[in-house]
Amino acid sequence: MRDVAIIGIGMPRFGELWEQSLRDVFLEAALKAIEDAGIDHLDSMYVGCMSSGLFVEQEHLASLLADCLGMGPIPTTRVESACASGGLAVRSAFIEVASGLSDIVLAAGVEKMTDLATDAATAALATAADQEYEAFHGVTFPGLYAMMARTHMERYGTTLEQLAAVAVKNHQHGSLNPAAHFRSRITVEDVQNSIMVADPIRMLHCSPISDGAAAAVLCPLEMARRIAKKPIVRIAGVGHATDALALYRRKDLTRLEAVERSAKAALQMAGFTPQNVDVAELHDCFTISEIILLEELDFVERGKGAQAAPSGLTSLGGRIPVNTSGGLKAKGHPVGATGVAQICELVEQLRGEAGERQVKAAQVGLAQNMGGSGGSSVVHVLQAE
Amino acid sequence: MRDVAIIGIGMPRFGELWEQSLRDVFLEAALKAIEDAGIDHLDSMYVGCMSSGLFVEQEHLASLLADCLGMGPIPTTRVESACASGGLAVRSAFIEVASGLSDIVLAAGVEKMTDLATDAATAALATAADQEYEAFHGVTFPGLYAMMARTHMERYGTTLEQLAAVAVKNHQHGSLNPAAHFRSRITVEDVQNSIMVADPIRMLHCSPISDGAAAAVLCPLEMARRIAKKPIVRIAGVGHATDALALYRRKDLTRLEAVERSAKAALQMAGFTPQNVDVAELHDCFTISEIILLEELDFVERGKGAQAAPSGLTSLGGRIPVNTSGGLKAKGHPVGATGVAQICELVEQLRGEAGERQVKAAQVGLAQNMGGSGGSSVVHVLQAE
Repeated sequence: MRDVAIIGIGMPRFGELWEQSLRDVFLEAALKAIEDAGIDHLDSMYVGCMSSGLFVEQEHLASLLADCLGMGPIPTTRVESACASGGLAVRSAFIEVASGLSDIVLAAGVEKMTDLATDAATAALATAADQEYEAFHGVTFPGLYAMMARTHMERYGTTLEQLAAVAVKNHQHGSLNPAAHFRSRITVEDVQNSIMVADPIRMLHCSPISDGAAAAVLCPLEMARRIAKKPIVRIAGVGHATDALALYRRKDLTRLEAVERSAKAALQMAGFTPQNVDVAELHDCFTISEIILLEELDFVERGKGAQAAPSGLTSLGGRIPVNTSGGLKAKGHPVGATGVAQICELVEQLRGEAGERQVKAAQVGLAQNMGGSGGSSVVHVLQAE
Repeated sequence: MRDVAIIGIGMPRFGELWEQSLRDVFLEAALKAIEDAGIDHLDSMYVGCMSSGLFVEQEHLASLLADCLGMGPIPTTRVESACASGGLAVRSAFIEVASGLSDIVLAAGVEKMTDLATDAATAALATAADQEYEAFHGVTFPGLYAMMARTHMERYGTTLEQLAAVAVKNHQHGSLNPAAHFRSRITVEDVQNSIMVADPIRMLHCSPISDGAAAAVLCPLEMARRIAKKPIVRIAGVGHATDALALYRRKDLTRLEAVERSAKAALQMAGFTPQNVDVAELHDCFTISEIILLEELDFVERGKGAQAAPSGLTSLGGRIPVNTSGGLKAKGHPVGATGVAQICELVEQLRGEAGERQVKAAQVGLAQNMGGSGGSSVVHVLQAE
């Protein structure tokens, strides 16, 4: 397998982009990434998108997006794994470059979600859960994560204040990110007073419904050394795993085993331990997720994840800053785009281009992107060359 | 890149499978392929599916299907390119094995279409066309292919009898295939008297709406030589290309340029010409498609595609038998499964296991799988070891 590098990124603002269609949103990100890379052609393309069929009644994105990007005949593949679709696009592009089949490959993620009314969007998102055993009975994602949060609170004494602290931290980080959907800072009281969605999960524990796209240009490391216009970031490790889709099929509601497996695989490929990671983007679709993820990634001991945000461990300036972009919570969560957006944030950090959000001397970054309630997980380990 | 072989296939019957859910249909095909390969584990999996979101309100198939197959944590990726999703699953599995990342990879395709009423299924299929510039205005696939047929008739003198002959031949082939949705033989008169859908396309020019799944097990050629229980089939070439999604963006309605490009790429990788191909499975979603495909693949001169079926060229016993399985027309067209089903038919032919449909001394097979009205195309060239 060839070594693979990232030589360009495109990460326009996430938000309620009512004046842009899916193709417009994609195009802006893809063109930025191509410009950032300073290249004039692509050999192949991957697009992560969860459900353009349900959100905008458009499948067959491969053909549509290659054409509107003016890259006409290139091979293009849409990949889907619910909210992990973006991470999967990067993994797929990585494999195609590593295999030697193609040299310059774009990995993009896109989702246009706000064209649907909120209840229809919630129903579309629920197709990432088990249709027959979960969604059919009326449970949606806040309900599923509420069960995980309750179990974690019962078992480890996790408190509502600790959950709220994750949202407060990520909004604080997001306030420094020009691309974030929400740049507002919030307090623990704001979270505690927000509308109840599924006890104990209130509105400010949830990531928003957003429109957006992100893109990255991959090529062989050796080629990057010749053509890159910006500091090179290497994809040092990739991991991918699945777990049972429905919660009733899991042994333990406080675990996300696909995350542990995918992280171990990625770190092993990179030859690193969790202690080598300087900055991480984690899939905080709900506040409880970030807490469990810290445990699965071995950044903290099991059961201690809730202490991380209040203690400052995961803030900018802490030992392991998590979600410097604002995370899904504040940066926004256009589901298919999220995994690629995480990669873009890490590349900015490892290039030293993150401005006010810069983690000092960051050399190694980890991105963890998750589908549904942990039914799939993709982890990338990036390293500054 | 490592050489890649197919060591197992699973191709249960296509049809209106009302007693099976999507997961049941998938499971039957996947287990058959695994049993046929004689293996006890998988390293990774790809699933091609066009629109489980619209057909059965279920995205995130990766997690669902890996779990219900009992392969729990393995990396699994769903790929989508409308009706070319299955071919893309095989291509993706090929790349992962070729890269060296994984050894034993399952490529499956699945679609459960008949749970929706026909008008809703037609609307779901229309998401493979351009939503903003085609589907929104009411055009569906029979209408799009009708325009292509009319143009071909105008330009090359193609007749209604010649179009009908494609359906007659493929039903004749399908009558010999135990896995076909329709095993009935039909006549040119039957086609001419069937209900008009979009002039000149009548019902018996169209492939049906079917449920079904198909699966294949891939591994490195070198490993296949050690572990294969059945004659080995090598994937000698793979090609993939896109074209403009909407017909108004094409220069010529009698052309399918993505097909030409993907076929050239696959044949070049294999080191073959069209004359080396002994048997082919082509994407005959409508009778006019098979006619244009023969021209794009250089099996006949441009403009002469319509003469192939009436002359016997493409029948069993002809110089280049096309769609010995019955094709999409008679075998059925569960859209995400079709590309993998084509591979299964060719493997049976190249193993010499095709029974009454056997093409004598077949050594090289070509499968061509298309999305929408030609917005994407995937071609595989297979060779008996």
